[in-house]
Amino acid sequence: MKSELDRLMKENDVTGIWVTGPGQHNPAMVYLTGGGHLTQADAIKPQGKELLLCHSSMEREEAMRTGLKTLNYNIYPLKDRLIAAVGDRLQAQALLYKQIFEDLGLTTGKVLVYGLVEAGIFHSLLKSVQALLPGLSFEGDVEENVISQATATKGPEEIERIRQMGKIVVTVVSRVADFLTGHKVMDEVLVKSDGSPLTIGDVKANINLWLSELGAENPEGTIFAIGRDGGIPHSTGTASDLLRLGQTIVFDIFPCEKGGGYFYDFTRTWCLGYAPQETQALYDQVKSVYEQVVSQLETNRNPSIYQDLVCELFEEMGHATVKSNPATETGYVHGLAHGVGLNIHEKPWSSRKDDPNNLLVPGSVFTIEPGLYYPDQGMGVRLEDTYYVTPEGQFERFVDYPMELVLPMKNERG
Amino acid sequence: MKSELDRLMKENDVTGIWVTGPGQHNPAMVYLTGGGHLTQADAIKPQGKELLLCHSSMEREEAMRTGLKTLNYNIYPLKDRLIAAVGDRLQAQALLYKQIFEDLGLTTGKVLVYGLVEAGIFHSLLKSVQALLPGLSFEGDVEENVISQATATKGPEEIERIRQMGKIVVTVVSRVADFLTGHKVMDEVLVKSDGSPLTIGDVKANINLWLSELGAENPEGTIFAIGRDGGIPHSTGTASDLLRLGQTIVFDIFPCEKGGGYFYDFTRTWCLGYAPQETQALYDQVKSVYEQVVSQLETNRNPSIYQDLVCELFEEMGHATVKSNPATETGYVHGLAHGVGLNIHEKPWSSRKDDPNNLLVPGSVFTIEPGLYYPDQGMGVRLEDTYYVTPEGQFERFVDYPMELVLPMKNERG
Repeated sequence: MKSELDRLMKENDVTGIWVTGPGQHNPAMVYLTGGGHLTQADAIKPQGKELLLCHSSMEREEAMRTGLKTLNYNIYPLKDRLIAAVGDRLQAQALLYKQIFEDLGLTTGKVLVYGLVEAGIFHSLLKSVQALLPGLSFEGDVEENVISQATATKGPEEIERIRQMGKIVVTVVSRVADFLTGHKVMDEVLVKSDGSPLTIGDVKANINLWLSELGAENPEGTIFAIGRDGGIPHSTGTASDLLRLGQTIVFDIFPCEKGGGYFYDFTRTWCLGYAPQETQALYDQVKSVYEQVVSQLETNRNPSIYQDLVCELFEEMGHATVKSNPATETGYVHGLAHGVGLNIHEKPWSSRKDDPNNLLVPGSVFTIEPGLYYPDQGMGVRLEDTYYVTPEGQFERFVDYPMELVLPMKNERG
Repeated sequence: MKSELDRLMKENDVTGIWVTGPGQHNPAMVYLTGGGHLTQADAIKPQGKELLLCHSSMEREEAMRTGLKTLNYNIYPLKDRLIAAVGDRLQAQALLYKQIFEDLGLTTGKVLVYGLVEAGIFHSLLKSVQALLPGLSFEGDVEENVISQATATKGPEEIERIRQMGKIVVTVVSRVADFLTGHKVMDEVLVKSDGSPLTIGDVKANINLWLSELGAENPEGTIFAIGRDGGIPHSTGTASDLLRLGQTIVFDIFPCEKGGGYFYDFTRTWCLGYAPQETQALYDQVKSVYEQVVSQLETNRNPSIYQDLVCELFEEMGHATVKSNPATETGYVHGLAHGVGLNIHEKPWSSRKDDPNNLLVPGSVFTIEPGLYYPDQGMGVRLEDTYYVTPEGQFERFVDYPMELVLPMKNERG
């Protein structure tokens, strides 16, 4: 939680935190400032002191709205810095940071750097800043000890925002189910009222529209993959594909609040009309593993143990898994869990076995998402919900939604 | 244009280009690969050779869809790299890049690095990669000489995509005008059919919905600012503000193709019902400057000369400008023009006077956006269209839309 930041900085011997980049769609910036329409900003927090939000003059009102202490870049005029830097724009930019850090009294110790940036230009800039401030050591939070650790547990307001996103997600999912099953069918293919076939592109356009209508957005897209595509976990589906009865559909939806806020992550696997026996069998196995792992969740444990558990369960059923073969492309081919917050994927991780702080504790928000993939058999099955741990240590699913594989068509004849 | 990449690399003594980060909402990646649902990818292009797209195993199908040469990260198993790196995850990641670069024969010379990344972690990673490949020099394209130079001129297909976005923008703008003017008015305030006042939040919700319906998204938000907010160029407007007759509304809309493609940038300033005399006067000045600058556009010129021209014109009218006072917060307070493409702001720039390649040439796509701002008088005026230069050197506006200040209400009585 945000209230832990100073303690985490102290424990990790961090003098300052520096978050740079845009105000929105930039998780660490949104976390510290609440987000705002800032093209470029810098949020700098010395250990034990108030956060300072640095902004351009044009964006002073947006910066002020955050309620934070602010600094307008133009108090260090670019003209003067360009003269000092002999016309070198990058050096003039580095001089700005030198002045800001010095004025904050940040001149020795470790500064952790966060934020979404353009890779090469920022790397070059940071090298220049580093040269100008030799007493500071600018580093990435590779061990996820400070902001990533703070964000790994959510407070009540964050939990509520994620729950709202969960409600939006199941509203959209139920509209999609309703939309699909209301179609006519000709030769096993869903057709629109004009007789033309319904495509995945059509379905996705509706998903985007409904998300927007409900105040959400899906910056990372939506997976709606049928048949073989569903057998590849991150295949998003082919827009021109038709919807055929009996084929498996993997529908993985992971939108966030409009403007780049909190995410929610959710997957169901569906067959329209009926399910072939082998699909039902695969589905039953995934569902059984899902239920077993959920029933065994305990606090203060590293989620990697549940990844191991799921691999063992699937292997007992005869499937290949990433545990015995990390490169497998059939069977169980990914991780079981990841944290969800301002990032769609964040701490805690089911892949982070050796990090003592990577634990399920009160305030953790994370997915459970076992799956089995057989692209050559034209199918994949994944089931996913987002869970959280209550202050009392109970594991709760944010929102319930039916898990049935088969969605019966309301009107199967064309 | 993309076809210039090898020439630009050669002229700038660049051995390789490395673009990293997600497949979408990552301009350099979308430019080189066409975009795709890739959580993490690396596009690497040695000078004079084919681009290689590196991807995770789960995302192999999305990578294949690009039609590019691909490499699955798992051919260099993480397990082996972790052993070599004695469990250090960052070092194991650096070893992956070492192997990829070596296998591509990229071991000496300058590599320009691009892509959207998490600042600190990437900086730490790049330091490790740099240490493992001492013959290479990893740098940012600070001078905008290679990818940013290639993207600064658009080919016919890109021009068409931007034109389509322009059509979507004016469709949404005309719906907004229609929506606003169709409201009833009580005591100078627009009211909904239930008698409650219409808010900017309501208007923005409709803008988001219409953009989504038309296949666009606005990752950077929309400026719809009334009264004093309109006097601050980057104030996005206050959701709870009401719509009052006679107040100035600055409506700046800059969406992109769904999934993070090409942008369009457009601004109109409106008064609902009527315009106070001083607003009309300010508006007339901005419009006159807009028309003068457009009539004087010539190819092969640095757009900074039009910024100077606009400053001179506004100063003759008695306004402060950034030319005489870079920190001014009233009068003309920003730049006149910026390129538009996969970034909402890109080369060419009206602020880049000393770059010999920062020119308006056939294929350039850029904004013209003069404005005047007087927040303390509760008003701001900006007019903006996106232009391009045809292969024949003609300057064309992508789409036309009326510039009138006053939108007459269809039914002024409540």
